Amino acid sequence: MRNIGRLLPMREHAGEVIENAAVRIESGTVAWLGHERDIKPAPDTPELDANGAVAVPGFVDPHTHLVWAGVRREEFVARLAGEQYDGGGIATTVAATRAASPDELFMLAVGRGRRMIANGTTTVEIKTGYGLTSADELKCLEVIGRLAAELPWGVQATYLGAHVVPPGRDRAEYVDEVIATIPAAAAAGATWVDVFCDEGVFTIDETRAILQAAKDAGFGTRLHAEEIAYTGAAKLAAEMGCASADHLEHVTAEGARAMAAAGVVGVLLPTVTLSLRTFAFGQYQVLRDAGVPLALSTDCNPGTSWCESMPYVVQLACLVYGMPVHEALWSATRGGAAALRLGDVGHLSVGARGDLALLDAEHEADVVARLGAPGCSATVVRGQVWPSPPMPRVNV
Amino acid sequence: MRNIGRLLPMREHAGEVIENAAVRIESGTVAWLGHERDIKPAPDTPELDANGAVAVPGFVDPHTHLVWAGVRREEFVARLAGEQYDGGGIATTVAATRAASPDELFMLAVGRGRRMIANGTTTVEIKTGYGLTSADELKCLEVIGRLAAELPWGVQATYLGAHVVPPGRDRAEYVDEVIATIPAAAAAGATWVDVFCDEGVFTIDETRAILQAAKDAGFGTRLHAEEIAYTGAAKLAAEMGCASADHLEHVTAEGARAMAAAGVVGVLLPTVTLSLRTFAFGQYQVLRDAGVPLALSTDCNPGTSWCESMPYVVQLACLVYGMPVHEALWSATRGGAAALRLGDVGHLSVGARGDLALLDAEHEADVVARLGAPGCSATVVRGQVWPSPPMPRVNV
Repeated sequence: MRNIGRLLPMREHAGEVIENAAVRIESGTVAWLGHERDIKPAPDTPELDANGAVAVPGFVDPHTHLVWAGVRREEFVARLAGEQYDGGGIATTVAATRAASPDELFMLAVGRGRRMIANGTTTVEIKTGYGLTSADELKCLEVIGRLAAELPWGVQATYLGAHVVPPGRDRAEYVDEVIATIPAAAAAGATWVDVFCDEGVFTIDETRAILQAAKDAGFGTRLHAEEIAYTGAAKLAAEMGCASADHLEHVTAEGARAMAAAGVVGVLLPTVTLSLRTFAFGQYQVLRDAGVPLALSTDCNPGTSWCESMPYVVQLACLVYGMPVHEALWSATRGGAAALRLGDVGHLSVGARGDLALLDAEHEADVVARLGAPGCSATVVRGQVWPSPPMPRVNV
Repeated sequence: MRNIGRLLPMREHAGEVIENAAVRIESGTVAWLGHERDIKPAPDTPELDANGAVAVPGFVDPHTHLVWAGVRREEFVARLAGEQYDGGGIATTVAATRAASPDELFMLAVGRGRRMIANGTTTVEIKTGYGLTSADELKCLEVIGRLAAELPWGVQATYLGAHVVPPGRDRAEYVDEVIATIPAAAAAGATWVDVFCDEGVFTIDETRAILQAAKDAGFGTRLHAEEIAYTGAAKLAAEMGCASADHLEHVTAEGARAMAAAGVVGVLLPTVTLSLRTFAFGQYQVLRDAGVPLALSTDCNPGTSWCESMPYVVQLACLVYGMPVHEALWSATRGGAAALRLGDVGHLSVGARGDLALLDAEHEADVVARLGAPGCSATVVRGQVWPSPPMPRVNV
């Protein structure tokens, strides 16, 4: 690809910019990148023109709940009327998701996935968590497998049976069921286990038991941590060697230091904080001061963040946290890859995957300056331009 | 137009919804609206299918600075690095705007205007304020006149010579020049005069003198008020009978009561507060408690709010102020019309202008639920569907 106005490869540091750049992708992998004037002609390779765009590595979105049915409008309206969000709204989605067939769930999720790719996401983590019976959780993993096969992006599947204790179930029995389902989740393609460890959801001890069982079965682990209240979940993530702890609105300096020491990536979800109207944006500085590596994510879900756009998340992170633009773009690419322990995505180096997001901007700062409307002019996945999906006409 | 899933006409109150609705527009004016089953056939009238969309009156955006040249990326980046915004960045835009020809300014602004209409805006107020000499301000008014002629929307032109005191000019002399330019501004099509009355910009006394001259010349008046600091500008707006006072981050209860008593509309600009990172969102409750009628606006400008989407402003207003969805949509339509003292737009009643925004949503609450991505599937201006402009592919 030639005529890249500004290429941000996210190699050694976030601020590296190659102007008037080109990238050669062979067999889906970056074979060369540098100044366009230095590229050697390759007559048999089709050449793409980036039209002067700003290019970053394809976005890596490390925290989504993409598989769901049903709508939760009433909850959204109630929240604007001042009611507190306690996670109870998940039950609405669970009922609709249980009632939906795998085909229905796939149809709903694949549309979201197509729009995510159009917005530059080329690697995504997708969680279960709206089935909450063994059978329904495995049904959701089947759908995640179809999403990985149908779309060209990279998918990491996470088993989140421990999203909430389903209404009417005994806590201890349900924790046992989650643990008992772990082998079947592995067989269904999951490689990660996540637990919503928070006030009113799963306790530290319950979470530790589930994570230990997951580790024993060879899973990587991650946590929903310190979102609703401080519970010590960040320290638990460090103790258990989780790849990431996510949300972290109520993280303490002590928890952040423990994460940094253990190499736990902090995944920030600014759309959720905005949607919940808690304005708890202080966690960024706490985590940064402790030296925690940071990622950004959409948390795409039907209750608190129906968001399919990583550029919008980057914009919002800059505005609500005061993140510098380059750091936010790093967190949305290389940071997400670190949260998923992936080495070949989130940066553009020789040998990395040939995934690029072309920002709809003359300069990366415009992704933040153009309020409410960041986007991608094109997405390249493994060297192929993602076809323009059938999309409704929307805001620029 | 038939097959409107939910029509919000904004007649007596914000919450009125007609399901399965139809609207008949004749000669650009609403001739009938109601349940689709009640519409009488009109064989000679072309019929449009809204495809089940949610329809609201075309948005009325009562505060924009659409005519500018140049970019202010450095300022945006500096602000994210923690520097304070003092309005000084305007000088960058002034230099570029003075250097630009009317054709260049028109080309830049008409693209913004097309995207605004695609986002559902059918009536807009446009200010000068980046010329800051008589000749350059009149050049900008000429451009505003061309924007009104070229696009089908309704345009209200505002003379904002008193945006800042230009660098190197004597304050008193510049205030005199602003006042002396008022007759020429009227001849160039302006019907409103606005003053940036704030700390470090124009004082209460300077503002009163400019507004009085404007009133004497037959202009309507409006103010940038209480944005940077409390100065008493809201009370001045009430004293002088301004149609609106805009920004209001630092308004007091006393100022709000004065506005309510005088019928001054409060124009809220949530994107600006987000962009400036002051998180001063308390003005909504102060104004609401005092009974001030409210409008929402993009404040589209190159420094603090490059925003062309009223649906995004509606979304953000709900999330940052806690505005109920119906109230936010009212403020973005009927409220904007009140701020511009227009009776025939901002609502759908027989005799009103046939302007509709079809929201890209099954339900109006989805404009808020779908984070970062509200949009319009189509805009109808005076009964005509706005053609899809040549737009880059972006987020849905």
